[in-house]
Amino acid sequence: MKWARFQHNGQPTYGLVEGDAVKIVSGDPFGGYALSGEELRWDDLELLVPVVPGTFYAAGANYTDHIVGMRKQTGADPTPPSRAHIGYRANSALIPHGAAIVKPADAGEQFQYEGELVAVIGKRARHVSKADALGHVLGWTIGNDISERTWQRADSTLWRAKNSDTFKPMGPYIDTDPDFTDMQTIVRIDGQEVDRFATLNMLFDAATFISDMSQYITLHPGDVIWLGTDGVPSNMRPGNRVEVEITGLGVLSNPVVAEDRASS
Amino acid sequence: MKWARFQHNGQPTYGLVEGDAVKIVSGDPFGGYALSGEELRWDDLELLVPVVPGTFYAAGANYTDHIVGMRKQTGADPTPPSRAHIGYRANSALIPHGAAIVKPADAGEQFQYEGELVAVIGKRARHVSKADALGHVLGWTIGNDISERTWQRADSTLWRAKNSDTFKPMGPYIDTDPDFTDMQTIVRIDGQEVDRFATLNMLFDAATFISDMSQYITLHPGDVIWLGTDGVPSNMRPGNRVEVEITGLGVLSNPVVAEDRASS
Repeated sequence: MKWARFQHNGQPTYGLVEGDAVKIVSGDPFGGYALSGEELRWDDLELLVPVVPGTFYAAGANYTDHIVGMRKQTGADPTPPSRAHIGYRANSALIPHGAAIVKPADAGEQFQYEGELVAVIGKRARHVSKADALGHVLGWTIGNDISERTWQRADSTLWRAKNSDTFKPMGPYIDTDPDFTDMQTIVRIDGQEVDRFATLNMLFDAATFISDMSQYITLHPGDVIWLGTDGVPSNMRPGNRVEVEITGLGVLSNPVVAEDRASS
Repeated sequence: MKWARFQHNGQPTYGLVEGDAVKIVSGDPFGGYALSGEELRWDDLELLVPVVPGTFYAAGANYTDHIVGMRKQTGADPTPPSRAHIGYRANSALIPHGAAIVKPADAGEQFQYEGELVAVIGKRARHVSKADALGHVLGWTIGNDISERTWQRADSTLWRAKNSDTFKPMGPYIDTDPDFTDMQTIVRIDGQEVDRFATLNMLFDAATFISDMSQYITLHPGDVIWLGTDGVPSNMRPGNRVEVEITGLGVLSNPVVAEDRASS
């Protein structure tokens, strides 16, 4: 089941994607829904991010090659973490599949993608075991954790390095049953492959994060957990199109444009 | 004007506080409202946090005495920051005035309050000057940035140290026009004063944060910015009541209880 969220009659609306068709529902996948009988075409949708989370969680360093490889760019400690310590991103930075990633006027050359698998919470989770954790997940989507490395090195927080406007593309939809077999995350710039890694080769998997987090924090329906990236990303420039494909799940594609300060 | 938010007929509802009376409105202070003619008494309200932010911002180190004094407890660098770098907290941790702060079963002795002034955004802000910044603020409220210092020292993020369930009391209401004259933040445990500082003695004031943030990030109505604390906080224990008073604004009061793992 694939859940898309889009603007319809002036309202954020959910629909079930079946091939080219999108069956509109009343309600939503978290609180309950019913088919409305109306149908749209995928190509006609004015897509929104598939959910606006109550809390937006993100794993920091969660793949070995990324942790070791990024030392030069960010100055970060290359020691793998001993526990699943979750971090946060900001809703203000979210944009849907297809929307433009805006490179700020004063951003440097190291303006980079990070392709990530995203878990979307479907049921309240508190004190859940690792074995039960995935029963609290509604489904999965794709995130692109856009990062400006000069600011990541210089600032004491990730506020503008990772949370400037448009820095968090997420979508295109939530898939409740992706094919995890040999799952690969592939990033392309203008159609050229620039990164590829085994999606599930994480230090801490979604079940571990959910179980560990839920010992202290209630996870709510609609919360999202971005699960980190592997490899050492390349730079993007205005005019590029960046695609994050996760095999068995989908493709998140966004153009990169330059900020026009005069009009913003 | 004082805006309270509370449960009424099963719905989050806003009202204007005038002495003991609360005048219920339809709508809200961000998108527009009208008096409904209904009135409640303050003491009868089932209070909620005065707003659930789209993005929950928090200044880290923003007062000199706190930065220097906390070095021993958190191991943090005592050098004051050179810029207003904003951080984040989690909506999942928010509780209203009066609700219980739950000390997790495995939290240590250094379980501490941090009394903070909070700016609530009223109007969209992007590329605003310092001079114009406060025109984008709807009003002000009080936050208590509950912190567990063992976890703050040990973990790579602030996820459980500052964002465990119930760690973010906020309220009791939003005051659009507090009295800033000689404003003091006073913290009391069981009625005993344990902390007092000049609220406006910040390294970076709200106007600076809003202007700087808005160069990269769109601030939206309902977003909150917690502005940091001064001094070196004391420990709290279950059975205590912790009050944060900001003179000219109000009092945020919450009991502290021990986690009961069997029932959670």
